[in-house]
Amino acid sequence: MKFSYPLNRILEIIGTNVACEGDFSAAITGIASLSSAIVGDLSFLGNPQYKDQVELSKASILLLPKDYSGKPKADQLFLKVDNPSYALALICRDIEIDLIPKPPAGIHPTAFVDPSASVHNTASVGAFCCIGSDAVIGPEVTLAEHISIGRGARVAEQTQIFPRVVVSDYCEIGSRNRLLQGCVIGSDGYGYTLVDGAHQRLPQIGTVVTGADVDVGANTTIDRARFGTTEIGDGTKIDNLVQVGHNVSIGKHCLLVAQVGVGGSTKIGNGVVVAGQAGIAGHLNIGDGVIITAAAVVLRSIEENLKVGGCPAQVSLLTNRIYSLQRKLPDLFKRFDQMEKTIESINQP
Amino acid sequence: MKFSYPLNRILEIIGTNVACEGDFSAAITGIASLSSAIVGDLSFLGNPQYKDQVELSKASILLLPKDYSGKPKADQLFLKVDNPSYALALICRDIEIDLIPKPPAGIHPTAFVDPSASVHNTASVGAFCCIGSDAVIGPEVTLAEHISIGRGARVAEQTQIFPRVVVSDYCEIGSRNRLLQGCVIGSDGYGYTLVDGAHQRLPQIGTVVTGADVDVGANTTIDRARFGTTEIGDGTKIDNLVQVGHNVSIGKHCLLVAQVGVGGSTKIGNGVVVAGQAGIAGHLNIGDGVIITAAAVVLRSIEENLKVGGCPAQVSLLTNRIYSLQRKLPDLFKRFDQMEKTIESINQP
Amino acid sequence: MKFSYPLNRILEIIGTNVACEGDFSAAITGIASLSSAIVGDLSFLGNPQYKDQVELSKASILLLPKDYSGKPKADQLFLKVDNPSYALALICRDIEIDLIPKPPAGIHPTAFVDPSASVHNTASVGAFCCIGSDAVIGPEVTLAEHISIGRGARVAEQTQIFPRVVVSDYCEIGSRNRLLQGCVIGSDGYGYTLVDGAHQRLPQIGTVVTGADVDVGANTTIDRARFGTTEIGDGTKIDNLVQVGHNVSIGKHCLLVAQVGVGGSTKIGNGVVVAGQAGIAGHLNIGDGVIITAAAVVLRSIEENLKVGGCPAQVSLLTNRIYSLQRKLPDLFKRFDQMEKTIESINQP
Repeated sequence: MKFSYPLNRILEIIGTNVACEGDFSAAITGIASLSSAIVGDLSFLGNPQYKDQVELSKASILLLPKDYSGKPKADQLFLKVDNPSYALALICRDIEIDLIPKPPAGIHPTAFVDPSASVHNTASVGAFCCIGSDAVIGPEVTLAEHISIGRGARVAEQTQIFPRVVVSDYCEIGSRNRLLQGCVIGSDGYGYTLVDGAHQRLPQIGTVVTGADVDVGANTTIDRARFGTTEIGDGTKIDNLVQVGHNVSIGKHCLLVAQVGVGGSTKIGNGVVVAGQAGIAGHLNIGDGVIITAAAVVLRSIEENLKVGGCPAQVSLLTNRIYSLQRKLPDLFKRFDQMEKTIESINQP
Repeated sequence: MKFSYPLNRILEIIGTNVACEGDFSAAITGIASLSSAIVGDLSFLGNPQYKDQVELSKASILLLPKDYSGKPKADQLFLKVDNPSYALALICRDIEIDLIPKPPAGIHPTAFVDPSASVHNTASVGAFCCIGSDAVIGPEVTLAEHISIGRGARVAEQTQIFPRVVVSDYCEIGSRNRLLQGCVIGSDGYGYTLVDGAHQRLPQIGTVVTGADVDVGANTTIDRARFGTTEIGDGTKIDNLVQVGHNVSIGKHCLLVAQVGVGGSTKIGNGVVVAGQAGIAGHLNIGDGVIITAAAVVLRSIEENLKVGGCPAQVSLLTNRIYSLQRKLPDLFKRFDQMEKTIESINQP
Repeated sequence: MKFSYPLNRILEIIGTNVACEGDFSAAITGIASLSSAIVGDLSFLGNPQYKDQVELSKASILLLPKDYSGKPKADQLFLKVDNPSYALALICRDIEIDLIPKPPAGIHPTAFVDPSASVHNTASVGAFCCIGSDAVIGPEVTLAEHISIGRGARVAEQTQIFPRVVVSDYCEIGSRNRLLQGCVIGSDGYGYTLVDGAHQRLPQIGTVVTGADVDVGANTTIDRARFGTTEIGDGTKIDNLVQVGHNVSIGKHCLLVAQVGVGGSTKIGNGVVVAGQAGIAGHLNIGDGVIITAAAVVLRSIEENLKVGGCPAQVSLLTNRIYSLQRKLPDLFKRFDQMEKTIESINQP
């Protein structure tokens, strides 16, 4: 993954509202964090807590916030921008297109496409893909290899699907989604009813519908609804190994970090953040703007804009107070034993 | 996923022991929950807590328990049955067969079947399946696409395997199993022994054997035994992203909800329920009828019919009491400080 | 999985430093634990806690530690060795080669290999594999079926890759790795920045590099770096359904048990053990030799050689003390109420 990337291309991408300071004008040959950068690298200050590392960094070009006051070293260039992290993202996107080019339109000769399926002539279908009856693959969709698209499923324009994803029967994927390797959209929901001592399956005849700009992580599973739809809102980004139960509804612009689990029929509002390994029980309402901290176990509905954590999850201020006091329990028990003795001595003087 | 489903077919399916009340006799065109149903929909009261929603529901046909006392509105039909949820399941099963028909028997031209494997002539093998040497695929088995069946593996009659499942070498799948997308049956168990500072692999030469009517969720992993078998009993239903370690034995009619983990060599009895994200350490015994609540961390064996939760897991009554008292810790510490002062003032009057 | 395995082959494998006692000289026909072994089986005492089971075991040949003092029954043979568990592993490895033989070198006719890829003539490429442009598959590498190797990816000698693994673009797999079914090496890291209310993707243009002798479990996901590399050190063994975030660095000879999650940019030293379902937040340092117990939630960096657990994780001695005192909280609150009354009565005599 070697590359050589000229300064003028960087300036083209991040635009005109940039203040340049310093004298490095060659191409960069790598991108690295402040502390690991070497000569020739591009680096950036995305998080103010790493401010002190700028002075020590060997990077040749640094993307910095406009209010950064230090001065570049010899053979070093500072580019001051509004959002260094996003400026870097724009550059990386350009490099990414070069490193991982969009495959050409067309259907790979090893793919199997049911005659009743419709694949847009600008779409790309990779090796060993299997596209079921009546499925519709939209314009500029990219399917990598080993992908399974079920009967009647629909994939909207410019969506990118990575190797060995499954989009099950009748599920609908929105525009510009990115479905990472191995995720399953539309596995059967987990529903049984006990009849004469045996669990009888409740058939799951609903679907999954994703909005625009949804990302789904590697080996994540999203269950189809019992009936109706499991919904993922516009701009929501789901990480790896997440489980979303049947009939869940997730709003817009949410973040679900790796290994999160969401129980069936739970409704999550807009702009909700669920940190890694947190679990949310079924049939709950999670309000807009809620933040759920890592490994929290949410067993009750949560009002909007609250930050919650712990097991069972409650307002983080209380949870953190409890965590802090728990560490004082050994001391408390000792003080308590001492106090009982004191009182005894008072009572029996 | 549109459909039109006549009333007489519903009555055929749910049988004669039904009390009809009301006057809707057209076909239903959808199925929905009480609160989201529209005219033309079938709905049901499965959980008594939603009883009040029946009166407000716009559904045209409602499946209700026999003791429901309300009256249908105009153009609405009540069907009173013993188990509304199961009655609905029977109807949905009928619709499911229509929406997702069983594929025809035969081997897809793109599949690869080793010449020494045996595929029953009533079985269906989908696109890009790979069936290893000496494998046996039984009557009426359905393999969707991208499935890997290892050498010497056996799949019994009427089992349904969804896309890109792996059944590893020598594993044995029982009758009427449903293995959902991406699950792995028979990955190597995780076993090492430290020799001269490096972890040496303990080969895993056992298998996995599942009983009849077992369901395994999407992207779940069940490890093969070190030697002997990892066993899943009849009627046990496993959800998505569950990990079952090597040499685990799970009894009959258990439920393992999403993201549960079971450590190696643990024995789980019959009728055990393990809620989402719970973990069970290795080498334990979990008695018949035990209930383990969500996210519990089970580090000791559990006697039959207990309900346990928390970290480390203990009887739920105690766990819930502890949770409740933890919330009072800030207050307790304040009271304690106050009391120390009071005692001091008594001691030094 | 039947076999017949002669005694002289066992002695050949475990070497000359063996003390034999007893008179069974036939072939063994199975391997089992002490308690489940039958006549004809080989068994072993790997863990001293099971010592009492040796006397009761029906196994015909037993691998025992050199200091075991009991005597064999009639028709039973004791083989006393330095490390019975490892001796058994060596025997099982020999049996494994027989049960699951290495496939012959060559490319399966159904595989798709890009013309610019390089596959060593001693490597084996299974059915429906897809190997991208400029990928390099080294000597004696074994790829099972349904595997996806991305463009520019490299797989070093003697590595074994199981069905439907994905090795993404430009990732580098070391020598003698074992990548189990369904794992994903090089999924995009989870990185976004909020711009005008929408999460903008931070492209992930780095790679994953694994050392020698690394094992990766089934359906585990390891994210590619934002830039630079996500690193897994020599001899590290990762179990199933583990999530490793972008830019994580894991040292040598670590163990990560099932369902562990490691947040982005965290650095883990050498010889670290992370038990099942534990989570480690991003941007932390975990020192050499640290042990993290099951389901721990690690939110701070940890100094070397500490054992930590709980939520939030802290030194296990303290965590276990807190767990123990929590169980006494109901009693403490009662004693406290009682004490308040006592003091009141003292104050108001």
